[in-house]
Amino acid sequence: MNGAESLVRTLLACEVDVCFTNPGTSEMHFVAALDRVPGMRCVLGLFEGVVTGAADGYARMADRPASTLLHLGPGLTNGMANLHNARKARTPIVNIVGEHASDHLRHESPLRSDVPGAAALCSDWYRVSSSGRAVAGDAAEAVAQARSGDGRIATLILPADTAWGEADGPAVPRAPQPRPQVAATAIAAAVQAIRSGKRCVLVLSGNALREPGLTLAGRIAAKTGVKLFSQGAVRRIERGLGRLPITRMPFAIDQGLALLADVEVLILIGAPPPAAFFGYPGKPRLLAPAHCETQTLAEPHDDVVQALQWLADELGAAQHAPLVNQAPRALAPADGPLTADSLMQALAAGLPEHSILCDESVSAGRTLFRFTDGAAPHDYLQITGGSIGLGLPMATGAAVACPDRKVICLEGDGSGMYTLQALWTQAREQLDVVNIVLANRGYQILRGELKNVGIEQPGERAQRMLDIVDPRLDWVSLAKGQGVEAVAVDTTAGFSAALAAATARRGPFLIEARIG
Amino acid sequence: MNGAESLVRTLLACEVDVCFTNPGTSEMHFVAALDRVPGMRCVLGLFEGVVTGAADGYARMADRPASTLLHLGPGLTNGMANLHNARKARTPIVNIVGEHASDHLRHESPLRSDVPGAAALCSDWYRVSSSGRAVAGDAAEAVAQARSGDGRIATLILPADTAWGEADGPAVPRAPQPRPQVAATAIAAAVQAIRSGKRCVLVLSGNALREPGLTLAGRIAAKTGVKLFSQGAVRRIERGLGRLPITRMPFAIDQGLALLADVEVLILIGAPPPAAFFGYPGKPRLLAPAHCETQTLAEPHDDVVQALQWLADELGAAQHAPLVNQAPRALAPADGPLTADSLMQALAAGLPEHSILCDESVSAGRTLFRFTDGAAPHDYLQITGGSIGLGLPMATGAAVACPDRKVICLEGDGSGMYTLQALWTQAREQLDVVNIVLANRGYQILRGELKNVGIEQPGERAQRMLDIVDPRLDWVSLAKGQGVEAVAVDTTAGFSAALAAATARRGPFLIEARIG
Repeated sequence: MNGAESLVRTLLACEVDVCFTNPGTSEMHFVAALDRVPGMRCVLGLFEGVVTGAADGYARMADRPASTLLHLGPGLTNGMANLHNARKARTPIVNIVGEHASDHLRHESPLRSDVPGAAALCSDWYRVSSSGRAVAGDAAEAVAQARSGDGRIATLILPADTAWGEADGPAVPRAPQPRPQVAATAIAAAVQAIRSGKRCVLVLSGNALREPGLTLAGRIAAKTGVKLFSQGAVRRIERGLGRLPITRMPFAIDQGLALLADVEVLILIGAPPPAAFFGYPGKPRLLAPAHCETQTLAEPHDDVVQALQWLADELGAAQHAPLVNQAPRALAPADGPLTADSLMQALAAGLPEHSILCDESVSAGRTLFRFTDGAAPHDYLQITGGSIGLGLPMATGAAVACPDRKVICLEGDGSGMYTLQALWTQAREQLDVVNIVLANRGYQILRGELKNVGIEQPGERAQRMLDIVDPRLDWVSLAKGQGVEAVAVDTTAGFSAALAAATARRGPFLIEARIG
Repeated sequence: MNGAESLVRTLLACEVDVCFTNPGTSEMHFVAALDRVPGMRCVLGLFEGVVTGAADGYARMADRPASTLLHLGPGLTNGMANLHNARKARTPIVNIVGEHASDHLRHESPLRSDVPGAAALCSDWYRVSSSGRAVAGDAAEAVAQARSGDGRIATLILPADTAWGEADGPAVPRAPQPRPQVAATAIAAAVQAIRSGKRCVLVLSGNALREPGLTLAGRIAAKTGVKLFSQGAVRRIERGLGRLPITRMPFAIDQGLALLADVEVLILIGAPPPAAFFGYPGKPRLLAPAHCETQTLAEPHDDVVQALQWLADELGAAQHAPLVNQAPRALAPADGPLTADSLMQALAAGLPEHSILCDESVSAGRTLFRFTDGAAPHDYLQITGGSIGLGLPMATGAAVACPDRKVICLEGDGSGMYTLQALWTQAREQLDVVNIVLANRGYQILRGELKNVGIEQPGERAQRMLDIVDPRLDWVSLAKGQGVEAVAVDTTAGFSAALAAATARRGPFLIEARIG
């Protein structure tokens, strides 16, 4: 058995049985090993941003890592933007990166680059395997590292000679590091603050936004009256009718400052102190007012669900009936020209039960939560690191993880263009994804951001850097060119009908939603 | 004047008057400054790989750097693969990368990342500006750094507060570092080897492949009988009828080994020692045989043209008539099913005078030089770092640099998908580019590489990772979706007719060439 085969067998032993890939020469032995070893599902992406974004979406839904297989330094850096998003989401991913044969690196050649340096930039853990015999143990360690804490990026660099070199066989799985428990003093401080009568807010992130964390938070809120916010950009929230209502920290700084203006104690549960998305001239950097006390009850990698359980116990809330979302069931809007808001409302009304909603709607989706509080229960995944181009790949990976659930992807036209190659993978794998492209013909978010940085009237040349017109993108053709059926709509009724038709069938589909 | 305006004015003073960009919030002050300062041409790319690849193509033809404007760490890493190619080509580029306001970096936020670490990975020089007043001087230094040696990647990181902060005005241009002269001992050693009667080869790169370097090399070869090879992947060669015939170091290792098998002295002029593209099991890493002596006459950043002049003087060749390409004029091939070879032959016959041929044909283009020796004089640009996805962006940038010349882009279907967004920029800027996509429905190169790494029979699942079928890509739709007219052809006569029509008109066009 060579190193490549020992890798594949070790990954399978560690329950990593999906590999998103775009391989090259240095990874050919791994590709060949896939044929000899049954059980690994390989999914080809035509660009590495698709590969890493799909691995992110997969792990968010599967609750275990996928692997990626990437070609040398450029393959890794092409996938780095979505690894940035995944790292901010604390999604577990195991990257396998090919490298030149060890004794070839001393010579200059076109693809020679600093692969360990690139891995250090985007990973929580990385290692270069030293021989074919070392690969299996290194792979087991990479999986354990990825599964440690709340989820981490682990990158294993495999020189080509470790792939073709002799190995001893697969390694046995290793246990991830246990998640640290929070300190009793932190619990006591939170209990004291909540009982003091001060205006307290719990800021939740990570698994606190999934069952059973949500129910525990709902019990605490119902019993004590504390408010519940989520971090602004999170990995996954269980939302919709029957779930806990929770306020998301807004993107816009003025809304964020207003939301926290009268808060006296912020209690962070897996979330960092809420900061502005960007620093703006003359505005504060942190969203909480200066007089507000901030307590860190649980760091992101701590056991946040255990922390909530403990807090509920101490507050006598463990048996209290939890808060539940009382929003009325979402209803389809009246017909009219399609707008961002009418689309969100129609989407909320038409969202299938237990669907997975992947959101990279950027500016157009600011009102999404208002409408989807009344939608059928669903999982909500969103872009987490502000690096656009995650939506279509994330939906692709979520659909691989959950073949029996409908995936809906809300995608901006500007952000969608970053990784539109994901549509081809959806077509090849016949994934059940409805892609909704919000065609507002530009980087709408930047039109607003100009004002925030103090620029009132952009001139014509500046405007041209924010608009995607001359020519207009034709998403129906872009989808068709990759084997995905598509329609364009510009009315609310047209959108509702297209959504109903798309959710009633199986397989990938794209709706170009031309919003005014 | 704020820092952003001082930057734009300094770049213009340094003759950097084109900016390829995909900006975000942190770069809005620079975008606004573009409106106030006339003279900077801004070209929007819908993905940063387009931005950096276009900057590469621009500088290869303009012989001076363009600037790029990139959004924080993810913007830079998205553009990094083509910066890798540009660095291998030694193309000068000035990257301007926005960063969070200095006092915002201490807080966790979605887009916080290690921007200096990313810059270090892909740049020959980088700096973080410390204040609005420092920006102008830093920009002048960045341009001087980019123009030093044979061409370098310089990256200037500008925290948002340096953009909106007060500045003193633009800085005056700084002189690039002079290119080192080669040592007299190196010239003497080369002269001795050439006069010894041993089989000598000059390996040329950089400006040695442009006039007047080519003529000097041609005089030396004609006088002494030394052979002339070019490095395997180079920035730019002036080729075609009337130019120097030169053998390119082949990609395939066995061909490379055969080509150098009887060479006794390799004399490197701006090129590294020829090494295999990849390390293969049981094959040598360097292409020259063990008994071959290797002399470095000029390092890549040395003054290679001066070195050739000196060598010609010492050999008494300075007035000798140079070797000239004696190939017969390329003729159109007979009709038949379109193949890689019949396409290359038809292209050679139809190549317009003084066109710019951008080559990322990967495997399909291996016979290109054989046919284009007899083509009209043209500039040949190619992928240099093995990181696919350069072709369409490079052609885009070359067309911005040379609006009066026809640009022909030879692009693989697999590599073209990496940065297909370049077509939109071609449409918006109405660039005169004929894009030829070699649709062989897969990563053809990998089908060959499997054998090179010792895998004779890939199985079905491995094959699926190399094929781009199910579904097939429809490049006519992909082009149309971005506002570029296109046709598909599958016969040699059909291709010749489409090429003739496309070169007779102005503006972007795409030919999907379905080759057997």
